[in-house]
Amino acid sequence: MKRALFISIEGPDGSGKTTQIRLLKEFLDKNGVESILTREPGGTVIGEKIRQIILDKKHIEMNPMTEALLYAAARAQHVAEVIKPALEAGKTVICDRFVDSSIAYQGYGRRLGESVRIINEYAVAGCMPDLTFLLKVDPCIGKERIREEEQDRLEKEKMEFHNTVFKGYLDLEKLHKDRIIGIDAAKTIDEISSEILVHVQPFLEG
Amino acid sequence: MKRALFISIEGPDGSGKTTQIRLLKEFLDKNGVESILTREPGGTVIGEKIRQIILDKKHIEMNPMTEALLYAAARAQHVAEVIKPALEAGKTVICDRFVDSSIAYQGYGRRLGESVRIINEYAVAGCMPDLTFLLKVDPCIGKERIREEEQDRLEKEKMEFHNTVFKGYLDLEKLHKDRIIGIDAAKTIDEISSEILVHVQPFLEG
Repeated sequence: MKRALFISIEGPDGSGKTTQIRLLKEFLDKNGVESILTREPGGTVIGEKIRQIILDKKHIEMNPMTEALLYAAARAQHVAEVIKPALEAGKTVICDRFVDSSIAYQGYGRRLGESVRIINEYAVAGCMPDLTFLLKVDPCIGKERIREEEQDRLEKEKMEFHNTVFKGYLDLEKLHKDRIIGIDAAKTIDEISSEILVHVQPFLEG
Repeated sequence: MKRALFISIEGPDGSGKTTQIRLLKEFLDKNGVESILTREPGGTVIGEKIRQIILDKKHIEMNPMTEALLYAAARAQHVAEVIKPALEAGKTVICDRFVDSSIAYQGYGRRLGESVRIINEYAVAGCMPDLTFLLKVDPCIGKERIREEEQDRLEKEKMEFHNTVFKGYLDLEKLHKDRIIGIDAAKTIDEISSEILVHVQPFLEG
């Protein structure tokens, strides 16, 4: 293997990220590639505490910029404490959501615009994914896959919000063709997994 | 009164901010000026939860940028939920620490530089103090005034850190002469209070 890979998986809720992350991890394990799974905004003690504040259903008064700054704070800790040390130790990192989620959800969904990108540039301190897989599912279909009672504060947002978030993801895909690989999440689990592995394999060949 | 005033009080720990805030509040009350006292980073339910994460002595692994982003997140909530509504309702706001603390402690003390100013521009969304009183005390003397066992994680920092923070405050004073009024905290309580009131009074005369 040339070097440790940093992979992020993105997409609306219900797009099948969890299944694909599991399959990717299994593939890496079988091929003897040491890797770790992690997720945003948690993965660290401090990050999980921040996550609790963000997702608490009681916090209906939360200001959109507060939310964006909290995600960025959790991310700064996540990068410094988990992602950078893993990559430096030669481990491949699979991250369930990363910067693109913030730009899609806060920049587009909450209409905070460019500020989210700038704040997150400080948070990641240059540590960006080599590959990002964007699982594209129509937000209406994605939302139906999650049972109502399991939805947290963000998931309960109106459909218009979710459509704006999805628009954000599509814009990011166009903007970062070198890094973001969009995949139609209407395909079968195996088809999606194969598409992901096609892009990961070249990195495994030294 | 022309309009509601936004006043922040700044300075190293042990500079006598609490006493001066109390005296200023008493003066405003006596003169029939409606005002509120608030402090950074708390003042809101969400802000107080963020404050708990920042000041927890167990969080020795906290990344400096995480700390700066958490302060900014608490501030965004504080501005949106407390400061802006109070000013709009015609109430004068006295704030114990504000943006200048972040620039001094994180920008200078933690050596995060310019990033702290930019992040906080997003957090305050244009809501800046009309007057800032900077109580200037030699950091060595200020630190001695606080008993060791009462010191939180930030206060336990080395003397070099506190000196750099103080340097930050002095630079800010030079940079924002229109807003920041530096006061020698070695003066008596009454002398300091009089100096503060001299600057506040013109705003009370309609």
